[in-house]
Amino acid sequence: QVRGAPAIALLGCLSLAVELAGGAGPSEDLGALEEFVGQKLGFLLTARPTAANLGREAERLRAFVRQRVETPGVTPQQLRESIIEYIEGLLEKDRRDNRNIGAHGASHILGRVPGGGPVTVLTHCNTGTLATAGYGTALGVVRALHQRGSLSRVFCTETRPYNQGSRLSALELRHDGVPVTIIADSAAAAAMREQGVQAVVVGADRVAANGDVANKIGTFQLAVAARYMAIPFYVAAPSSTCDPALASGHLIPIEERPGTELTHLAGVLLADPEVDVWNPAFDVTPHELITGGIITEWGVFAPSELSRALT
Amino acid sequence: QVRGAPAIALLGCLSLAVELAGGAGPSEDLGALEEFVGQKLGFLLTARPTAANLGREAERLRAFVRQRVETPGVTPQQLRESIIEYIEGLLEKDRRDNRNIGAHGASHILGRVPGGGPVTVLTHCNTGTLATAGYGTALGVVRALHQRGSLSRVFCTETRPYNQGSRLSALELRHDGVPVTIIADSAAAAAMREQGVQAVVVGADRVAANGDVANKIGTFQLAVAARYMAIPFYVAAPSSTCDPALASGHLIPIEERPGTELTHLAGVLLADPEVDVWNPAFDVTPHELITGGIITEWGVFAPSELSRALT
Repeated sequence: QVRGAPAIALLGCLSLAVELAGGAGPSEDLGALEEFVGQKLGFLLTARPTAANLGREAERLRAFVRQRVETPGVTPQQLRESIIEYIEGLLEKDRRDNRNIGAHGASHILGRVPGGGPVTVLTHCNTGTLATAGYGTALGVVRALHQRGSLSRVFCTETRPYNQGSRLSALELRHDGVPVTIIADSAAAAAMREQGVQAVVVGADRVAANGDVANKIGTFQLAVAARYMAIPFYVAAPSSTCDPALASGHLIPIEERPGTELTHLAGVLLADPEVDVWNPAFDVTPHELITGGIITEWGVFAPSELSRALT
Repeated sequence: QVRGAPAIALLGCLSLAVELAGGAGPSEDLGALEEFVGQKLGFLLTARPTAANLGREAERLRAFVRQRVETPGVTPQQLRESIIEYIEGLLEKDRRDNRNIGAHGASHILGRVPGGGPVTVLTHCNTGTLATAGYGTALGVVRALHQRGSLSRVFCTETRPYNQGSRLSALELRHDGVPVTIIADSAAAAAMREQGVQAVVVGADRVAANGDVANKIGTFQLAVAARYMAIPFYVAAPSSTCDPALASGHLIPIEERPGTELTHLAGVLLADPEVDVWNPAFDVTPHELITGGIITEWGVFAPSELSRALT
């Protein structure tokens, strides 16, 4: 199962590239090959309603295919190869974008800390190697801080019900030698107050034109707690997750997941299996709570500046 | 394992009563019996540093024993019997206090809701039958609302890492026919906003003179979220949990629990077992966030009024 909005878009496209490289789909007819690619992309789009960048990458790829099909003299084999190259380019760009997000985010955070660091930060869910193509978005910022010798410690929330923080973020950060401490989701505000957290950095599944952010459930209350304690709250979001056509976060569809994610774990019953469960996968953080800024591959923007910056 | 501040005090005393009724301790000498009781109470006190009412009940019982020992003509057998009666009286009083807390809390909440209800409320951890002697404190308020036909629904947080909300509160409320929905701790703020929560009611392990409240980890961030959304936040606290001698919440010692509570569950490994964990059992909610009031057996008080009301 693939998690993380950037990874969903990218791995969806990569699996298509792998299929095409393996000879899948029609090989005699340009129009039939275009239709095959369109169907694959359509299937990906219906699977995850909250992720913005999936839809936009799919649209761009569709437009690229259309343009190639209309180019005089292109053979089906050439079309196939150009689609594979296009998708490989996406992977390269994603890696480069994540490194830029890390660099911009680390500089911005350190610029606001008395003495320039080192800093203690808090993050939520997993936005690293296991959710993106490599370096990570919010975890890219954490990695960049660590590589500069400017990270005291990162607190990772457990991130129920799938425990991406305690299972994945903790694992990959420890592997890289980053000082990491896990906490229960409930301990986040207490950690901000008692453990000297100086910045909160999370990822994004979708960013609306007004700067509202849909991200893993729990992001909203982290942002509320951070503002109460005057700790800057950052969202690391590649420009591909920003959707200027979406006026506000109220319009973002929120996926609800099965209640068994809360009542069952690896065969162990955690709760009364008959109980009602409300299990939204995401929540929307209003733009006024994103007090640090939105970290993109082009720089850090206030939510109100984002739309203009990306167009 | 006994949880819940009221239950810890009460069950500690009850186990002493059961021992005394079974003939434990010296039977020939008043002073020796007094010392035996004092040692038992001292042991209880060292076990749980955060619970206020344990210390105060123990002090009162010690004073009662002292007074009886000094009463001319009292035999060791009479002393033993009077201690057992005293403790049985505590159990009766606890049940009566919880019913009063439920009644005061329900009336106060309904008095602030347009049209007088029914209301949707949110609670944290377990403060019911399984944490008190019967009716419950915060869950006593929930029960009272339900018995008046004025409860639409109660949302119970899972309450990691011990899942007292999803395991215990959900179980006992469903058993009583109360409409209950469990949510991840991270979904609390989203539930307040999206599911029409009109009041948040939690319990207390210890209340300081200025109205600061120590309670299960996560209470602080629920209070921050409730204030952000202008939802009244209530603490249901028998007067025995209030400690007028403690000036502020900063002075309340917070128990830290083993990290394995977060990394292991019923033999299943939830996280990298080598990772650092910060696992405080409680946090302190500052009095300014307790916007609904502190619900005692004598009525509902603003945090600033509490000290005067209880003395």
